Amino acid sequence: MLTQEGRVALSDIADLNQLKFELNRIPAVDVGDYIAELLPERRAIAFRLLKKDHAIDVFEYLPPEVQEELINSLHNAHVCQIVGSMRPDDRAELFDELPAGVVKRLVQQLNAEERRATATILGYPEGTAGRVMTTEYVRLREGLTVGEALHKIRLSDEDKETIYYAYVTDDNRKLLKVVSLRQLLFTFPDVLVGDIASDRVVRVRTDTPQEEVAQLMKRYDLIAAPVVDREDRLVGIVTIDDVVDILEEEATEDIQKLAGVSGGDEAAWSPPLVTLRKRLPWLLINIGLYIAAASAIAPFQHVISSVTVLAVIMPILANSSGNVGFQVLSVTVRGLGVGEITPQDTLAILRKEILAALGTAIALALSLGTLSLIWSPPHQRWVSSIAGLVMAINVLIAATLGTLLPMGLKRLNLDPALISGPLLTTSLDTIGFLTFLTLISSALKFFNG
Amino acid sequence: MLTQEGRVALSDIADLNQLKFELNRIPAVDVGDYIAELLPERRAIAFRLLKKDHAIDVFEYLPPEVQEELINSLHNAHVCQIVGSMRPDDRAELFDELPAGVVKRLVQQLNAEERRATATILGYPEGTAGRVMTTEYVRLREGLTVGEALHKIRLSDEDKETIYYAYVTDDNRKLLKVVSLRQLLFTFPDVLVGDIASDRVVRVRTDTPQEEVAQLMKRYDLIAAPVVDREDRLVGIVTIDDVVDILEEEATEDIQKLAGVSGGDEAAWSPPLVTLRKRLPWLLINIGLYIAAASAIAPFQHVISSVTVLAVIMPILANSSGNVGFQVLSVTVRGLGVGEITPQDTLAILRKEILAALGTAIALALSLGTLSLIWSPPHQRWVSSIAGLVMAINVLIAATLGTLLPMGLKRLNLDPALISGPLLTTSLDTIGFLTFLTLISSALKFFNG
Repeated sequence: MLTQEGRVALSDIADLNQLKFELNRIPAVDVGDYIAELLPERRAIAFRLLKKDHAIDVFEYLPPEVQEELINSLHNAHVCQIVGSMRPDDRAELFDELPAGVVKRLVQQLNAEERRATATILGYPEGTAGRVMTTEYVRLREGLTVGEALHKIRLSDEDKETIYYAYVTDDNRKLLKVVSLRQLLFTFPDVLVGDIASDRVVRVRTDTPQEEVAQLMKRYDLIAAPVVDREDRLVGIVTIDDVVDILEEEATEDIQKLAGVSGGDEAAWSPPLVTLRKRLPWLLINIGLYIAAASAIAPFQHVISSVTVLAVIMPILANSSGNVGFQVLSVTVRGLGVGEITPQDTLAILRKEILAALGTAIALALSLGTLSLIWSPPHQRWVSSIAGLVMAINVLIAATLGTLLPMGLKRLNLDPALISGPLLTTSLDTIGFLTFLTLISSALKFFNG
Repeated sequence: MLTQEGRVALSDIADLNQLKFELNRIPAVDVGDYIAELLPERRAIAFRLLKKDHAIDVFEYLPPEVQEELINSLHNAHVCQIVGSMRPDDRAELFDELPAGVVKRLVQQLNAEERRATATILGYPEGTAGRVMTTEYVRLREGLTVGEALHKIRLSDEDKETIYYAYVTDDNRKLLKVVSLRQLLFTFPDVLVGDIASDRVVRVRTDTPQEEVAQLMKRYDLIAAPVVDREDRLVGIVTIDDVVDILEEEATEDIQKLAGVSGGDEAAWSPPLVTLRKRLPWLLINIGLYIAAASAIAPFQHVISSVTVLAVIMPILANSSGNVGFQVLSVTVRGLGVGEITPQDTLAILRKEILAALGTAIALALSLGTLSLIWSPPHQRWVSSIAGLVMAINVLIAATLGTLLPMGLKRLNLDPALISGPLLTTSLDTIGFLTFLTLISSALKFFNG
């Protein structure tokens, strides 16, 4: 594979001229990795070997701390050139990461046009189309011919991802039509753009959440989608490379939130303190919830001491219904995340989950019942039927909560993954223990009374 | 948004001519949804209203069962035309889903070229580049001029996703260089393609796993990647729309496997029996594992009956360390999944996780210790120090296993998500209970002896 070849070759190079040649030959993302892995004092040297255009690309792939270090160690003019030539959305992302002082210094050196583009993007809240869009796109008038349009695209010298569609607007930048580069290329030069462009334009608003943008572009197989403001004026486009990142980010968020990692944005390389800050809250909340559960169990301590097999059965009961709940929750949250289901489907999905849970309930109730039968002393065999019954009930409750809770959150326009797995399983534990101990306690009274 | 407009409009249409006009105007994916939601007897009628090209696109978006139904209800010639005009990768996907008898009938009606393309794709194992690639791409010779190349691309009339790159090969189809449509468009027509094409071509092999293809294309921001055979001959390309699907599929797989859903490929709309078959195995395996855990606890029943506060403490101990393990497991599995970390990073990640776990261990040990102190009867206050100690130990074990197990599986080239959350938490429960009960039992002997 290319990457590995590139890396092996670079580490073997002693000659600066040859390194320069190689660094300018291999893809920017690989050069970025190479520079990031160098000792800090060598980074600026390696970076200065890059040609201007390549340097800009490489800079975008460097981790924020290396970007900041380079900004401080390179000449002002050089930095200015690089930051000024970045795509507006990438520049906005960089400014987001850098300390305010550095950003201020950089902004002062941008020209008016660059400053405006960056400010526009930074003006939209994180996680919206406005924030991930780029303000570089091809805009055409309806009256242009295809030949003139292609000429305009050639002159524009836009970034590679932004020329596959061109957007037709009126004089007030109101978005009217879309035409693909492929259509332009396949049409005679003297045809009018307005005649071949389509007026059915899939568009998003600046405040559309980024995951909706990604799902929409996925649905329509788009390489770019136009972003409009409240007056339907074109202000930017979101490109497919951003969609790929958004989809991965959203999936990671779902996974981590389900596992009880706050925010769902922990990087595998986060420092231990960041990791601790993201993970501890849910663990402590959970222990807090368990105090409630424990207070519920505490009055039954005498029951446990007279039916000690409960100490064996209760963890299985808790663990199994917790697992069922987690399975249902994961499938539902993910289904909502990829747009496979919506809150409108709540009843249909609930029906399906309950039907599946009936099978699960029977299988698990029989398993736990049989085990309890084997483990109970002869005079307490009746415990097994209660164990089986409670197992079955708890599985059905697990399936119901695992479906209704995320669906309900989504309907309220909240994040369905707010219900983390730990929260659900702890609740199920409490419900299960309480039902079980209450029933056992009543049975004991019945047999002894 | 377009979709909703389209749907609302369609349901209001009584006139067949107007329906025909509308159906041919709105995007194929929306027409697909519309037809899928119709009553079976109306589907063929609606489908016949579509123009040929649009019909092919719409057909690809229909669910497999509707595709099969249409194949059976439409005229043979019509079906033949549609299936023959599908992109080879989409046709292969369709054949995968249809009953063998129907496939046989369809294959007989394809021409030699179409049959060959489909057979090629179906010859590669599921989940590899060979299986997701399309055999439609633009291939150029080095000696061509840019003008000739653009002319060839215009004539090729390829699908929209497949013309953004053209590949330069020698006479044996060996892949030499790549050139983007943008480069061709921005260069004077009489320049030779060989002079502007790049010889650094990021390529994948037919047997490259699909998730690696997706990660590679994401890394290099590619809209298409060439697929070569063992002799480095170009056989197809993977396009960005497939990458988006692959990334979502892989993320869903990780989430579901972590939650203990076998295969990780359950659709939210799977029928209850499929759901049951995917979810029950892990639940039963888990109860099986718990038999081991319970057999370990059973001999300690006398300990529990004399220290009944254990019935309150043990679920918290199990639940909390299980949650810690699940958090670590999720972050590690996802980190491996998106290529953020590799098994080479095992030691560094383990070090980070242990450091974070030390903080967690202290916090949870103090919480559980304090709670135990409050709940224990005065003569059993010593239980709280053991509870805190075991909590701390178990958190450290959880962090270690949560890191090492997926890393180890990945190093063995197995799926890191093979270790489902339930498997890990059950193991942690067993370890925790055993340590706890052994220590408590020894302490009891010490105090009483």
